[in-house]
Amino acid sequence: MQRRRFIRQLSSSIGAAALAGSAPAIIVRNTLAQTRRNSLGFAFVGLGNYATRLASNLADAEHCHIAGVVTGTPAKEKTWAEQYNIPDANIYNYENYDSIANNDDIDIVYVVLPNSMHMEYVIRAAEAGKHVICEKPMALNTDQCARMIAACENNNVKLSIGYRCQFHPVHQEIIRIGQNKEMGATKVIQADFGFRIGNPNQWRLKKELAGGGALYDVGVYCIQAARYATGEEPVSVSAQEIKTDPVKFNEVDETILWQMKFASGAIASCSTSYSSNFNRFYAAMEGGWTRIDSAYGYGGQTGTTSKGAIEAPENNMWAAQMDDFSLCVQEDRKSRVSGEEGLHDVRVLDAIYESIATEKPVDLI
Amino acid sequence: MQRRRFIRQLSSSIGAAALAGSAPAIIVRNTLAQTRRNSLGFAFVGLGNYATRLASNLADAEHCHIAGVVTGTPAKEKTWAEQYNIPDANIYNYENYDSIANNDDIDIVYVVLPNSMHMEYVIRAAEAGKHVICEKPMALNTDQCARMIAACENNNVKLSIGYRCQFHPVHQEIIRIGQNKEMGATKVIQADFGFRIGNPNQWRLKKELAGGGALYDVGVYCIQAARYATGEEPVSVSAQEIKTDPVKFNEVDETILWQMKFASGAIASCSTSYSSNFNRFYAAMEGGWTRIDSAYGYGGQTGTTSKGAIEAPENNMWAAQMDDFSLCVQEDRKSRVSGEEGLHDVRVLDAIYESIATEKPVDLI
Repeated sequence: MQRRRFIRQLSSSIGAAALAGSAPAIIVRNTLAQTRRNSLGFAFVGLGNYATRLASNLADAEHCHIAGVVTGTPAKEKTWAEQYNIPDANIYNYENYDSIANNDDIDIVYVVLPNSMHMEYVIRAAEAGKHVICEKPMALNTDQCARMIAACENNNVKLSIGYRCQFHPVHQEIIRIGQNKEMGATKVIQADFGFRIGNPNQWRLKKELAGGGALYDVGVYCIQAARYATGEEPVSVSAQEIKTDPVKFNEVDETILWQMKFASGAIASCSTSYSSNFNRFYAAMEGGWTRIDSAYGYGGQTGTTSKGAIEAPENNMWAAQMDDFSLCVQEDRKSRVSGEEGLHDVRVLDAIYESIATEKPVDLI
Repeated sequence: MQRRRFIRQLSSSIGAAALAGSAPAIIVRNTLAQTRRNSLGFAFVGLGNYATRLASNLADAEHCHIAGVVTGTPAKEKTWAEQYNIPDANIYNYENYDSIANNDDIDIVYVVLPNSMHMEYVIRAAEAGKHVICEKPMALNTDQCARMIAACENNNVKLSIGYRCQFHPVHQEIIRIGQNKEMGATKVIQADFGFRIGNPNQWRLKKELAGGGALYDVGVYCIQAARYATGEEPVSVSAQEIKTDPVKFNEVDETILWQMKFASGAIASCSTSYSSNFNRFYAAMEGGWTRIDSAYGYGGQTGTTSKGAIEAPENNMWAAQMDDFSLCVQEDRKSRVSGEEGLHDVRVLDAIYESIATEKPVDLI
């Protein structure tokens, strides 16, 4: 409890600092460099499957392009260099990563490493004067999140979390309807995302690398969705865990249910799993409902409301996400998926684990 | 706690008595009367909207027919008598109800009264030697359920609870797949049923008549569904309540979420509401999933599994339910939706309210 209060104070003082900091015009070398061109250069840190997906979608972006990579695997250097025409000078490893500071081709670093490495590589990017996108979940706890936010502020770089759903037109419509109360106040949200995880040797199942299991990996989408659909922070969280395969999931959580109460009277019922497939968002409002089937996946989002289908064009949510951050950098705006957004979600993650441990609701006021 | 233990003992001794009782052939006057014809006579007790629905659907039944009514509203006597060609001798009020014992036209009494009246009218039916169907929820607490079961056993009449969903082909397919483990063990169930209640003056919103709110009225369908889809009893229940309209819902619950853990490792996430519309069943199994949209309503059940649509014929679930009970009576079989089924659900209802009050999980072992 002592620790959570400290984090709350830290979090709110960071919020205040961020607000104060956005007022004066901040002139730093990167901002100057970036205004010289319309397309900003991205370097991906950690070249796993998701980085591959990000890089291939970046081709659809208008305001940014791939400019470099950071990898601990020499074999990947050549593959990526050839595929994306990356000069040798823009290829880094984890040792010389900090010298990226001297590379004007690279404006933004996108950290796609295992969760436990997020904090270090975001802070090193910030200290190298690079703007940063960090994959979700932001970090292993709110202390780490707060340190990452502070490092970016101290180095006058922008920070964003890789929440691609907020750049999907169907989710944007759910946000618009929910936050504008177009169908009245939200009453009940059901947000569920789970999948059957494959390879038992992957980093996602190692606590030291992943920090947590299904909840960290995909449950965080449901926390996000409940928060952005209501525009509110939860005031109380309760949670339950169940494990059916203690061998495969000996280090991380397999299946977790949790519930979030909001001050407005909205309540969210959520579930996540590494051993079950489900993927859905539903919001019941006073005057109707919204729903997304295949809500949080890499495609196939189908939006419906009580008035009919959501007619949203399919877009490239990854390109939209990276474009938006590039424009935030160029226009000196805060990202809608800021470090504070990441911290709020991690705060809920912490509360969920605390509620499981104590078998009691955890207040977040 | 003391009280729950008592009920558990009572419940299990009743179960044992029921098993012991089913072995010898029981010959009572009604059983003899019933074997004289193929179609058994129903009398409905309480002629509200749902009784009207039951009676009109009874026309599709093969093994039963409407034979009488019991009502406290004289105006309804004439309407029903004319519509269903019911002789004066088969029309009862709440005072002369017990004399139904002398009426051989009536084999089965269907109690469709407000929840708080279930126990009295089921016991009076049993004591009149009539078989009984009682609407859900069975009663206000497990003590009442146990007394109803005992009264039916003591009077050698059969008892069934009005769980129509178990007679719907889509639910039957969900039961078959789940209990046969056709897609492997069930991991996660999501069962949600809520609706926006209208008229603020109806008995459903009066604690004295209804006993509880949304949970009693429609949440009980979700408890049922999780139990029959797994074929298991929950071993632990946790629950959360939220109220956004304390005027309309000053006597009963508005919105409740609850979670049920099963010994197999399955877990169910459920929600119910009188102020939100949702109506869905979902089960994630090791090797696939099943889903029903519009799961618990009066029609429109759409079943899907990971293998495709459930091709189940639309049937008349009410006629099927009443036909099945008529055959149970004629063939001296226990109903699949027995009093014990009703008691098990009420036991979970009790645990849900206890968990809300104590803010702790409630063990049901």
